[in-house]
Amino acid sequence: MDAKQKKILQEFKKAGARIETKSRVKLKTKADLALFYTPGVGVASSYLAEHPEDARALSVKKNSVAVVSDGSAVLGLGNIGPYGALPVMEGKALIFKEMANVDAWPLVLDTQDVDEIVRTVIAIAPSFGGINLEDIKAPECFEVERRLIEHLSIPVMHDDQYGTAIVVLAGLLNAVKVVKKPLKKLRVVISGAGAAGTACTKLLHLAGITDIIVLDRSGAIYLGREGMNAPKQELSTFTNPNKIIGSLEQVLERADVFIGVSGPNLLTSEHIKTMAPNAIVFALSNPVPEILPDEAKRGGAAVVATGRSDFPNQINNALVFPGIFRGALDKGVTKITEETKLRAAKALAALVPTPTAQKLLPDIFDKRVVPAIAKSVR
Amino acid sequence: MDAKQKKILQEFKKAGARIETKSRVKLKTKADLALFYTPGVGVASSYLAEHPEDARALSVKKNSVAVVSDGSAVLGLGNIGPYGALPVMEGKALIFKEMANVDAWPLVLDTQDVDEIVRTVIAIAPSFGGINLEDIKAPECFEVERRLIEHLSIPVMHDDQYGTAIVVLAGLLNAVKVVKKPLKKLRVVISGAGAAGTACTKLLHLAGITDIIVLDRSGAIYLGREGMNAPKQELSTFTNPNKIIGSLEQVLERADVFIGVSGPNLLTSEHIKTMAPNAIVFALSNPVPEILPDEAKRGGAAVVATGRSDFPNQINNALVFPGIFRGALDKGVTKITEETKLRAAKALAALVPTPTAQKLLPDIFDKRVVPAIAKSVR
Repeated sequence: MDAKQKKILQEFKKAGARIETKSRVKLKTKADLALFYTPGVGVASSYLAEHPEDARALSVKKNSVAVVSDGSAVLGLGNIGPYGALPVMEGKALIFKEMANVDAWPLVLDTQDVDEIVRTVIAIAPSFGGINLEDIKAPECFEVERRLIEHLSIPVMHDDQYGTAIVVLAGLLNAVKVVKKPLKKLRVVISGAGAAGTACTKLLHLAGITDIIVLDRSGAIYLGREGMNAPKQELSTFTNPNKIIGSLEQVLERADVFIGVSGPNLLTSEHIKTMAPNAIVFALSNPVPEILPDEAKRGGAAVVATGRSDFPNQINNALVFPGIFRGALDKGVTKITEETKLRAAKALAALVPTPTAQKLLPDIFDKRVVPAIAKSVR
Repeated sequence: MDAKQKKILQEFKKAGARIETKSRVKLKTKADLALFYTPGVGVASSYLAEHPEDARALSVKKNSVAVVSDGSAVLGLGNIGPYGALPVMEGKALIFKEMANVDAWPLVLDTQDVDEIVRTVIAIAPSFGGINLEDIKAPECFEVERRLIEHLSIPVMHDDQYGTAIVVLAGLLNAVKVVKKPLKKLRVVISGAGAAGTACTKLLHLAGITDIIVLDRSGAIYLGREGMNAPKQELSTFTNPNKIIGSLEQVLERADVFIGVSGPNLLTSEHIKTMAPNAIVFALSNPVPEILPDEAKRGGAAVVATGRSDFPNQINNALVFPGIFRGALDKGVTKITEETKLRAAKALAALVPTPTAQKLLPDIFDKRVVPAIAKSVR
């Protein structure tokens, strides 16, 4: 561990936790206790036993989100288990509170079994108004999310999937304004077929982009490729219409957009030069992107974005998830629909009406972001 | 619903929840975000992946307790499910914060199956520094608590069992001072063989009282009684040494102590008159006790306590659970031992060195209570 890392760890130790609880009512006298504990609480309990649908009005369910992870795909660190995941979940809980006044509690799980994760989240769901799944690896995350959405009557979103997809689409909506290309005519290459890559592909397709090629470690995904799991097979049915076979370098030729949600240092300026003119490069691998912004620009990229805060154009989920859950909680929305995801991307993009190559999306501390996204949730 | 109940419900609605989350660090700049979210959080995550034992120093695990209920035995209201239980769990979370600065989060479960409860709590345990079980019915609660204590390396306490038992023993330690009887010579009758009755019996026995008769709905429990479940059979092995058979009225004759954790209005002054002189009556059924204080005194009781805040001598778990978990969290204690329970009862009793019939235990807002109990946890 270097000196800088030691200093960071020291900051984490100093705070202990990043969040704590806070009382919303006073508890100073026996009368307070008699109201909010016994015997008064019996009135609320009896009422909710008869009217469980009113839990949102009378309890923590009103404003709470569980941030749930099994620690199987934490940041770029991989499968580091629940304790490794805990600081990330606390960081999200902190962002939820500061950005959107959502009361989020981190729940890291001592299991990575799909059935167990689903069972556990269903079991604890009555206490929460929403479930933010986080850092669960593909393909397990798809089934976990699908089954929970099916079963629960509170909103469930796997942020690595749709938080990322929404902010990527928002960035792309503004990037095409900068390069003056029609969205639906774009040829998009997506490197990475995990949680983020799969969801980005689906949302971009839903937004009307038909020429998308997704790549995993074996190269381009195409209909009929052997040995693919079910989620990749599904991708192959609506992507890569020309059944292009090949490596990332090969499929990148003449592409308008590169979206990287895969790994560090995959590309050089030489690769970017083979793309169509005015190429858009979203190199989102964190902390080391698929290609550094300067290198991408040397290859002729017109617009470059990364996941990092120290370059322009940070494409960050934190622009999305607080507003999505804020909106869902406020309106009692039980499912985050595809239409909501599209609307959220458009609402976020619309906050920068005249985007430039240096400024695609609003700043993460821009106070307009959460209300705009929340408004798009229906 | 009467006017008073409507007013109480209104207060619950006004606050929405009784607790919320609060940030412990500031998140105002990109530098803050880079420290506590990506990329800084990666340092803490990597470290905890390697050193999970340090989660207490670096995360919410340091100061957090899950208040877990399946809603199967809520207050005197019975099996009213998770939503009915939620206001009680929030009330406890509120008390945890106000009394002991413990960050407790309510988790009400959508299951009442013992295996599922155990599995769920084990699954979510990495996020918490302690587990407070609550309002789970007997006999299921015994197995749930036993299996969780066995499996987890964080403290687990079913408050309806041992929170109650500790405060009852504390009250009794001071009541015998008032009536000047030796503790170990007492003849104690305990009405109720559920969670509280069973734990009280065990702790009083551990404190050296040998003549205890426990009753359930079928009357006195004695060795060899037919049709008893395993927990009652266990009670029969160390209680009722003279194998007295009979109803509550019958076994109450010549008893020194009555402890009611059963139901409303079971006794009259006539029954109390049959007890030994200077009888001690703890009528703890809530909100309606087994006998009202005035009625018990008419029968000659020397010391009377209830669970209610509107009579003298409130015997309330809230005197105990905040300090138990405060102590366990501060010291990294992983099990609440029998010795700790005894010490906690003695520490609580010692805060009123000269008890009277009107004042057995300290007030619930007495600032000395939590530190004294926390100190007894080892």
